[in-house]
Amino acid sequence: MLARAAWSRIAEPADRAAGALLRTVGPVDALGWLQSAGTGDDAVRHAVSRLCEVIGVDDRTTVRRLAAAVARWAPRVATTDPARDLDNLARLGGRLVVPEDDEWPTGLLDLGDEGPACLWVRGTGRVDETLRRTVSVVGARASTDYGDRVAGELSVGLVAAGCTTVSGGAYGIDAVVHRSTLAVDGTTVAFLAGGPDRLYPAGNADLLRGVLDGAGLVLSELPPGSVPSRVRFLRRNRLIAASGRSTVVVEAAWRSGSLVTARLAAGIGRPVGAVPGPVTAAGSAGCHRLLREGVAVCVTDVDEVLELSGAAGEGLDGIAATGALRDDADTRETDGLDAPGKAAYDALPLRRPVPVDALVRSSGLAPHELMAALGVLEVRGLAVRSTGGWSRAASTGWS
Amino acid sequence: MLARAAWSRIAEPADRAAGALLRTVGPVDALGWLQSAGTGDDAVRHAVSRLCEVIGVDDRTTVRRLAAAVARWAPRVATTDPARDLDNLARLGGRLVVPEDDEWPTGLLDLGDEGPACLWVRGTGRVDETLRRTVSVVGARASTDYGDRVAGELSVGLVAAGCTTVSGGAYGIDAVVHRSTLAVDGTTVAFLAGGPDRLYPAGNADLLRGVLDGAGLVLSELPPGSVPSRVRFLRRNRLIAASGRSTVVVEAAWRSGSLVTARLAAGIGRPVGAVPGPVTAAGSAGCHRLLREGVAVCVTDVDEVLELSGAAGEGLDGIAATGALRDDADTRETDGLDAPGKAAYDALPLRRPVPVDALVRSSGLAPHELMAALGVLEVRGLAVRSTGGWSRAASTGWS
Repeated sequence: MLARAAWSRIAEPADRAAGALLRTVGPVDALGWLQSAGTGDDAVRHAVSRLCEVIGVDDRTTVRRLAAAVARWAPRVATTDPARDLDNLARLGGRLVVPEDDEWPTGLLDLGDEGPACLWVRGTGRVDETLRRTVSVVGARASTDYGDRVAGELSVGLVAAGCTTVSGGAYGIDAVVHRSTLAVDGTTVAFLAGGPDRLYPAGNADLLRGVLDGAGLVLSELPPGSVPSRVRFLRRNRLIAASGRSTVVVEAAWRSGSLVTARLAAGIGRPVGAVPGPVTAAGSAGCHRLLREGVAVCVTDVDEVLELSGAAGEGLDGIAATGALRDDADTRETDGLDAPGKAAYDALPLRRPVPVDALVRSSGLAPHELMAALGVLEVRGLAVRSTGGWSRAASTGWS
Repeated sequence: MLARAAWSRIAEPADRAAGALLRTVGPVDALGWLQSAGTGDDAVRHAVSRLCEVIGVDDRTTVRRLAAAVARWAPRVATTDPARDLDNLARLGGRLVVPEDDEWPTGLLDLGDEGPACLWVRGTGRVDETLRRTVSVVGARASTDYGDRVAGELSVGLVAAGCTTVSGGAYGIDAVVHRSTLAVDGTTVAFLAGGPDRLYPAGNADLLRGVLDGAGLVLSELPPGSVPSRVRFLRRNRLIAASGRSTVVVEAAWRSGSLVTARLAAGIGRPVGAVPGPVTAAGSAGCHRLLREGVAVCVTDVDEVLELSGAAGEGLDGIAATGALRDDADTRETDGLDAPGKAAYDALPLRRPVPVDALVRSSGLAPHELMAALGVLEVRGLAVRSTGGWSRAASTGWS
C-alpha cells in the first residue's frame, strides 16, 4: 500500500511503463528496484539490464523505454514520502484504496497498464459499491441554460433509476450533475485532477464537500498536494470514462476535454451518448462531432441513457427505463390498419358520404378489398355507413 | 407515352404489380391486355392465365397477385382518358416525360418496380439536367424559427455549391427550402402528391409558381386533377428521396412524413442527414430518432451536407465544401507539440520563473526530455528563459 502510494507520486497518471512494471514485479519490488537504480546514465543502464534479466525480457525497445522511464521517475524518488501523504489524507478523513483491495472498482481494470496505481479516497462509502451502477455525465464548463437543464434532468432521472452519477467536479455541466444528484438525495462521485485535499476549482469546494456529506466520494489517483495541470485533467478523464457503465456528454465545444472522455470511454468499449443541441450553438458542436464520428449515440432523455447503459457488456442489472415508450404514448387512429385499411380511410370524405364505386376509384383498391377495409374501419369506429354511402366517423380528424 | 399516361391514372403510386407488368410486357401491351381482361372473376382469371403463359411465369403467387391487381385497376380503366390529361397539362405549359426519354432522371431508376410510370412535368428545364446535382431537403410543416433558419441557410449554401434543391412544396421546412433557393436565384424542384395542375397546398400556390418562374420544376407522377391523399403524400416521398444525391431532414416530429422520406432514401442507398436540435423541442425528436436508429448522419452545416452527398456512390462531381475546415480555424498554441512538449508547457508557470529541477519534478519528465521540450517551446515562442529559470511567454494564456 505504501509502495503504491509512492508510485502515485513518482509516475504521472497513465504512465504505461510504470503500469507494466507494477504488474510485472509488483509495486514493492518495483519501488525497491527504482530506489537502488541510481541516477547516472551508467547506473540506470545497469539497473535496467538487471531488471530485464529478472523478468526475462531482452528486447531493445523495452530496455530503452525502461531507461527513459527511470529518467522520468528518478527525480521524484528522493522527495516522495507516502507515509506523510497517507497521514495528510487521514487527517481529512480519507484513505487509500489499492487494486489488491476487495473494494477496488472493477471498471478501472479495463484501463490495463494505464490504470491508476491507487485511489486516494475521500468519503465513507465502499468504492466498488458506490460505483456499481454508474453513469458518467460530463460536459462543458461554459455550459448554457439549455445544457444545465438537460444535465439536471438526466441526473435526477438517473437517481430515480438507482444510478450513481460520476463527473469531474468542474464548473458548468459537471457541477450541475453533482448538484442535481444531491438535490434528490442521490449519490454522486467526483474524480479530481489534482490531489484529493484540493477541492478544485475553489468555487466548487462547497459543492464537493456536499458530495462527501451526501454519501458520495471524491477520488483522485494523485496524492495530497498534487497540482492539477492540463495533462492531468485529460488523463483524469479516463477514470471517469472507465467508472461509468456509459458516458454521456451533455454539452461540449468543438474542442473540449469532454470529447477526450468520450473517446476514452469508447476506446475501452463503454457506450457513449451525446446530447444534441441547436446547430447554431457552439456549445453543442462537440456533441454533434461525436455523433458524426460515430463515437457517440444520440441520447435525448434518461430512458435513452439507461438503454445505452444496458447495452454495455454486463448490462445495468436492475436498471429499467422509467418512462413509457413514446411509441405507445403517441398513437394514431389508423395505427394497426393494413395497407388497404389505410388507403380506404384516406379515401373516405370527412363529411358528405360517397358511394362505394367512387371510393373504389379514389382509393385504388379492388371492390372486394375496399369492402373488407370499410368493414374493419366500421368496426373500429373510423367509418360510418349512411344512405349516401360512406364517410369518416365524426370524431376522427385528418392528422 | 399515352399508355404510360394512362397507367399513371390506373395504378396508384408505387404499385409493384403495375411496375413489374410494365417492365415485362411494356406499357402499351400491358394496357391493351388490361382493357381486354374484362371484369368478371372468370374473365380476369382467364386473362391472367393467358398473360402468365406469354411471359413464361407459372407460380401461383404471381397469378394471385396479378388477379388482385386487375381487380384494383379495372374500375379505373373505363374513365381513363390520357389524351385529355395531356391536353389539360399542355394548356398549363406542362408535358409528360417517360422513362424511355433521354431526359428521364436516372435517380428514379433506383426505385425499380416502385418507380413512377411517368412524370407530369411543369417547368422549362430538362428534368435530367435540373436534377443532376441535387440535395433533397425536407422537414416539418409545423417548423420552428430554428428549423426555418437552418433550412434557409442550408438551401443558400447548396445553391452556392451549385446544387438544385428538391422538396415537397409543403408548408414549413419545404416552403423555406423553395423560397430560400429562389431568393438567391437558385433552382429548386417540388414533387407534388396530387396532380401537377393542383399547386397544393393553396397557400403555397404563389411560391410554386415562383419555382416555375425560377427555372425550376414542379413534378408529379399523377395526372392532372388527381387529389393528394395521405398515402399519396407518403409515396410521393420516395420520388424526393430518389431524386436527391442525399436527403436532409431539418426538423421532424417523432412521427413525421419526413422520416418516411429519410428511410426510403436510406433504403435505396442514398445518404441521409438529420439536423439535430434541442432535445427539449418536439420538432427535433424525429431527427434525433433518425440519428439513434442509424438511418441518418448528424449534419450541422452545408459543408457537412455536401460531404454527405459526396459520400454517395457517384459523388457530387464538382461540388466542394465551401467553408474552411473548422479544425484549421480553431487552433491552439500547443497544437503540434508532442507529449513531452505539452507536459513541459503545462508545468511552466505563467509569471514567476522556476528553475529546471523544479520543472523536472512538476512535469514528470526526465531532465533531458524537459530540456529538449523547453528548447522547442522557446523556438515556438511559448517559453521564456530568464535568470530565475523558465516561464511561459507573456502573450500566451491558459486556455
